[in-house]
Amino acid sequence: MRVYNFSAGPAMLPEPVLARARDELLDWGGSGMSVMEVSHRGKAFVECAAEAEATLRQLMAIPDDYRVLFLQGGAFGQFAAVPLNLAAEGDRVDFLSTGDWSAKAIREARKYVVPSVIADEKPGNYTKAPADGSFQVNPTAAYLHYTPNETIRGVEFGYVPATGDVPLVADLSSTILSRPVNVSKFGLIYAGAQKNMGQSGMCVVIVRDDLLGRARPTTPAVWNYEQMAANDSMLNTPPTFGWYLLGLVYRWVQDQGGLSAMGERNRAKADALYGFIDGSEFYSNPVQPDSRSWMNVPFLIARPELEKAFVAEASATGLTNLAGHRSVGGMRASIYNAMPIEGVQALIDFMKEFERTNG
Amino acid sequence: MRVYNFSAGPAMLPEPVLARARDELLDWGGSGMSVMEVSHRGKAFVECAAEAEATLRQLMAIPDDYRVLFLQGGAFGQFAAVPLNLAAEGDRVDFLSTGDWSAKAIREARKYVVPSVIADEKPGNYTKAPADGSFQVNPTAAYLHYTPNETIRGVEFGYVPATGDVPLVADLSSTILSRPVNVSKFGLIYAGAQKNMGQSGMCVVIVRDDLLGRARPTTPAVWNYEQMAANDSMLNTPPTFGWYLLGLVYRWVQDQGGLSAMGERNRAKADALYGFIDGSEFYSNPVQPDSRSWMNVPFLIARPELEKAFVAEASATGLTNLAGHRSVGGMRASIYNAMPIEGVQALIDFMKEFERTNG
Repeated sequence: MRVYNFSAGPAMLPEPVLARARDELLDWGGSGMSVMEVSHRGKAFVECAAEAEATLRQLMAIPDDYRVLFLQGGAFGQFAAVPLNLAAEGDRVDFLSTGDWSAKAIREARKYVVPSVIADEKPGNYTKAPADGSFQVNPTAAYLHYTPNETIRGVEFGYVPATGDVPLVADLSSTILSRPVNVSKFGLIYAGAQKNMGQSGMCVVIVRDDLLGRARPTTPAVWNYEQMAANDSMLNTPPTFGWYLLGLVYRWVQDQGGLSAMGERNRAKADALYGFIDGSEFYSNPVQPDSRSWMNVPFLIARPELEKAFVAEASATGLTNLAGHRSVGGMRASIYNAMPIEGVQALIDFMKEFERTNG
Repeated sequence: MRVYNFSAGPAMLPEPVLARARDELLDWGGSGMSVMEVSHRGKAFVECAAEAEATLRQLMAIPDDYRVLFLQGGAFGQFAAVPLNLAAEGDRVDFLSTGDWSAKAIREARKYVVPSVIADEKPGNYTKAPADGSFQVNPTAAYLHYTPNETIRGVEFGYVPATGDVPLVADLSSTILSRPVNVSKFGLIYAGAQKNMGQSGMCVVIVRDDLLGRARPTTPAVWNYEQMAANDSMLNTPPTFGWYLLGLVYRWVQDQGGLSAMGERNRAKADALYGFIDGSEFYSNPVQPDSRSWMNVPFLIARPELEKAFVAEASATGLTNLAGHRSVGGMRASIYNAMPIEGVQALIDFMKEFERTNG
């Protein structure tokens, strides 16, 4: 029996995607081989890879002057690859510090550039995104980096920062495909696949053409955007099964009606869960309402000693992985694209019952 | 119907491994989740990951003072990561140049160190490994790097070079697990998984403890051996499905009798195919007999205009991916662990019949 899996990532995948991958795991398209056994340079896989990219381009309405790259090393790898590709040694780079992930990106970038934190939400314990227009972008910065959604504390930007001529770089790992996004506002977007798109081990980079060709000589070839763009992300062997799976997820999102439909569903799911939490005296969420994540909903119980029981009892009823991140504790429900509204409703029903029994 | 797939990588996998992965793709161990949907920090996956490592340690008899890392970015990523971790800027590193892959490793290393090619087989068109003892290791080299098996031209070392106190570094992507190896002779072994161990997107690094802690400050965290070792290769999210699949392949190798049995099987397969080629006037292999690869067998036809027909007709009879690498042409049969002797025999039978019809 399949469960409702609230894991923050690797996370729940659409069942039709998994079923298709299972059905053709030993014989892909009548080839007598698994998709993971064929050459990445063979016609069949090259077409599969190109189709995944084309579907993503259509879903996100990616303009023609952006390249889409399929890289290894996760978003954490991009914490190093972005400064190596976009900035020279000694360059200043602006950062918005809004939680654990943006902080990690800053720490890694410090190896290669001079980070300048122009908005820091740590003093408020990371409970909101900075207000639109409340920070000043340095016009000489090589780029501005931010994390539109912080998965650990559930803080999400409700707007895209305006940065003028300074390229905007965003880690969209946990929100890509969750709602429409205007790609043309970004210089570069990167996203690990394991939350909203597929399996871990694959990272998608969407980069504007004019930002290619700036990589410093010490950039590893497998992360050199220009080289990878020139080789259709196959300078080396890509994670073929992961790429194939991305294509299946992209088609599934298309079948759901694309990003507008996805956004409406995700808003409805988030509204239901936050609405229930706000209406309760037993559960609480500390994030400022305009900065609440649609994807990751952390919450606390009035009696913290009940947390373990909550997680265990939920799991026993088929609602799994509800423990908060080990660095903050509490509970967290990650409700990415693949989580149906029925899963959120089942969680709310369980929360009600748990409160009735223990409140 | 499954075929005999002679792809050089991504390559054929053992059918029982694929069948098991298929059977539990939507429900791993009764969890109601796919293994690719669960958190890498959850108990179930941590155990699965540890078991894969333990099985590999047992198979290769890896000494206790070696760490095993599961990294992203492929062997090509390690072309950069090895010099960043093991050598300071300006350090000399010795290289044996025996084919296209060692040449690529040298080109990438040049970004970080001063490569010194102490044996170069290019003048002989890469048709043999240098003779044992024919090259001089520089005692001040940070390490010596070589490629024990060159997949494109099918050249394999029949010995492990002696390097004294200079750490020996080897790219074992295409020979790992194909026969017993004395790990204690190496400072560091790395291997992409997609030839003999699993799916692309995963790279295994086996490194001696005393080589940790030398990484230069600009080493990306996801490739920093010391940091990765301290975090059980989970500083960031690893390719969980790829790791799980490694574990299944490792157990399959164990079921086959381990590396001694694997080595006997692989020697028999290679002997049969080279024996047939050498006994024919129609087919030929240019590699010096003592340097012939057990894993990759390139061969030519006396009438090169028949190459396309050979590959197409072979494919039609269920012997796929026999075209040589695009850089050298001809044919190539990759016969990794997962290729049974029956597949090699079927290939020989086809080659005989093709010669009879076209010779």
